Amino acid sequence: MSSEFQFTLQTTDNTSAGRAGLWQTPHGIVETPAFMPVGTKATVKGVWPGQLRQIGVQKILANTYHLALRPGSEVVRDLGGLHTMMNWDGPILTDSGGFQIFSLTELRQIDDQQVVIKSHLDGSLLQLSPERAVVIQEDLGADCIMCLDECPPHDVSRERIRQAVERTTLWAKRCREAQTRSDQALFGILQGGTDRSLRELSAKGLLPIEFPGYAIGGLSVGEKPSEMYDTLDFTVPMLPTDKPRYLMGVGRPIDIVEAVCRGVDLFDCVMPTRNARNATAFTRSGSVKLRNLKHTRDTTPLDPDCPCSTCTQFSRGYLRHLFMAGEMLGPMLLSVHNLAFYQTVVRELRTAIKNNRLAEYRETFIRNLESSPGQA
Amino acid sequence: MSSEFQFTLQTTDNTSAGRAGLWQTPHGIVETPAFMPVGTKATVKGVWPGQLRQIGVQKILANTYHLALRPGSEVVRDLGGLHTMMNWDGPILTDSGGFQIFSLTELRQIDDQQVVIKSHLDGSLLQLSPERAVVIQEDLGADCIMCLDECPPHDVSRERIRQAVERTTLWAKRCREAQTRSDQALFGILQGGTDRSLRELSAKGLLPIEFPGYAIGGLSVGEKPSEMYDTLDFTVPMLPTDKPRYLMGVGRPIDIVEAVCRGVDLFDCVMPTRNARNATAFTRSGSVKLRNLKHTRDTTPLDPDCPCSTCTQFSRGYLRHLFMAGEMLGPMLLSVHNLAFYQTVVRELRTAIKNNRLAEYRETFIRNLESSPGQA
Repeated sequence: MSSEFQFTLQTTDNTSAGRAGLWQTPHGIVETPAFMPVGTKATVKGVWPGQLRQIGVQKILANTYHLALRPGSEVVRDLGGLHTMMNWDGPILTDSGGFQIFSLTELRQIDDQQVVIKSHLDGSLLQLSPERAVVIQEDLGADCIMCLDECPPHDVSRERIRQAVERTTLWAKRCREAQTRSDQALFGILQGGTDRSLRELSAKGLLPIEFPGYAIGGLSVGEKPSEMYDTLDFTVPMLPTDKPRYLMGVGRPIDIVEAVCRGVDLFDCVMPTRNARNATAFTRSGSVKLRNLKHTRDTTPLDPDCPCSTCTQFSRGYLRHLFMAGEMLGPMLLSVHNLAFYQTVVRELRTAIKNNRLAEYRETFIRNLESSPGQA
Repeated sequence: MSSEFQFTLQTTDNTSAGRAGLWQTPHGIVETPAFMPVGTKATVKGVWPGQLRQIGVQKILANTYHLALRPGSEVVRDLGGLHTMMNWDGPILTDSGGFQIFSLTELRQIDDQQVVIKSHLDGSLLQLSPERAVVIQEDLGADCIMCLDECPPHDVSRERIRQAVERTTLWAKRCREAQTRSDQALFGILQGGTDRSLRELSAKGLLPIEFPGYAIGGLSVGEKPSEMYDTLDFTVPMLPTDKPRYLMGVGRPIDIVEAVCRGVDLFDCVMPTRNARNATAFTRSGSVKLRNLKHTRDTTPLDPDCPCSTCTQFSRGYLRHLFMAGEMLGPMLLSVHNLAFYQTVVRELRTAIKNNRLAEYRETFIRNLESSPGQA
């Protein structure tokens, strides 16, 4: 990996395990903790790239599985790679496709060599191996790429999760060997569910490979929030302190707060944009359902304290109208707000860490949520 | 009507009947010829108001019928009226609902007093009279409002069209009498289909009322383009020269060019945004269908000469991908381009008029279209 990548730990909060850092990539710096909006098919749904910048987004995620199926990774490559194609010149991360393979597709065959799946789009059979996952991600051209992992659901046997850990380690080595580009940081992914000894097994397998960053996979797959937090309590300390730590697919704002308190640096989740399309807004006081009748004649902004383009220009009444009328502008406006809210939260977390006040920030955050029952 | 409204004729082209003017309204000046994007339900689909400004849009249209059904005109009024609700501080025009009544709804009863219709949304019965149409439009609060008219389809008998002319005249008088706000310009609407004597009958009925502007209705309802142009040839000269002339619901870029050559000042049409949602782009060389396979690896912009945010940032290949993947950003990007193209055309028409070169502009416009067969 080239020297274009550099993770600098700036501060560690003395009231928690929270930390603030700078992650240098070929397409710019990411201040951590950071939240990456999800652009599954090379677009953060309903938002122009310039609006992401304006919101303060520094890094986005795109999904290898979806892009490999359509338009195909070679097409993305021929369109200049993800940065050029999407007109996003900031850092990008692609996942490995592992999560989608195990959640979206019909598995036809899996062994240590490869996985054969049926496309959720047209039923065609696809082969994916660690080597192929790297080739695809090199075509896509993101700054950070992920090893192919096996991500089992929450409710399978311990033995099944152990097998997934072993296979994920095996595949991680092959991914590292397959990598040809020096301008992409390849992350290893820990598996092991909520089991401490299996997480240790996973760390023991992956740490010697010395990846430039580590992701925690296999969470947010059906376990309770408390189980996720407990798992982070013992898993994060297994990871090197001088490398970025990425909790995949998480989550609600409170989950991000809790995970940052436990030392996680990077997050991604579809919730801000998906909930926006379902007329649900995130606020400091919890979620607001904009289809609710009570917003009909409400001339106040969704969140009077929010500086986003939506809250400074439009009323709750107008937002409700747009959703009731099925107008595209509703999801567009609410996606901008929800993403802005997530950015506000991670910015505040960073500030709290620098001021050694993260535990206090967490308490206030929880109190605000609890003191506003049923905003909707 | 207050002095806030003032139409100033600046230039008349000496190669055609084309004219350039300035139409002062309480929310700013509209340079004519002008095209108004359609915001049916108080949103131009897929476009932020700030983007409309950036494109150069000066005035937009909203639909009385749709807004009266949902959210209801009183709700719009309570949300501050259309300008505040939509966050559009430029001029707005509302139609009277006449066109939608006769094209979208099931007519239950119509007589000189009123029309009773069944809502296309939920089947509820609604009464609409000239007086009610004015009350609704006063609630909505646009700068320009329209008399309730009867707009029959193209293929009915001459007698039926004559009856519609008579009723439209009767209703126009009642709308004028019902008007209470002085900050809205109420336009009369000519009917009469493609029949010269019926258009004369309509003009004879409406001109004595001395509306501050006149609309030509009853076109773009199924007749051939040549029939529309012929009708404009004899209808436009019936209208006063010192008042704005608005051709309702028209149309394709070539229709706008032809109508401007015949002395029309204002236009509206859903085509730029509707075609955008169907992956069809307007260009000087005709339409481009972005789902076409040939765009798959095309890294060039949709229109290299277009200064819009879409053409300066994204490739044809990416646009195709967005449409094939069913992503919202496709319609969003293409709506901006298509609206920008319409603005470019009306801006060029204005310049051509000022330079007395409108006939030449029209010829070049037609030649460009004809020399590019099957862009798609």
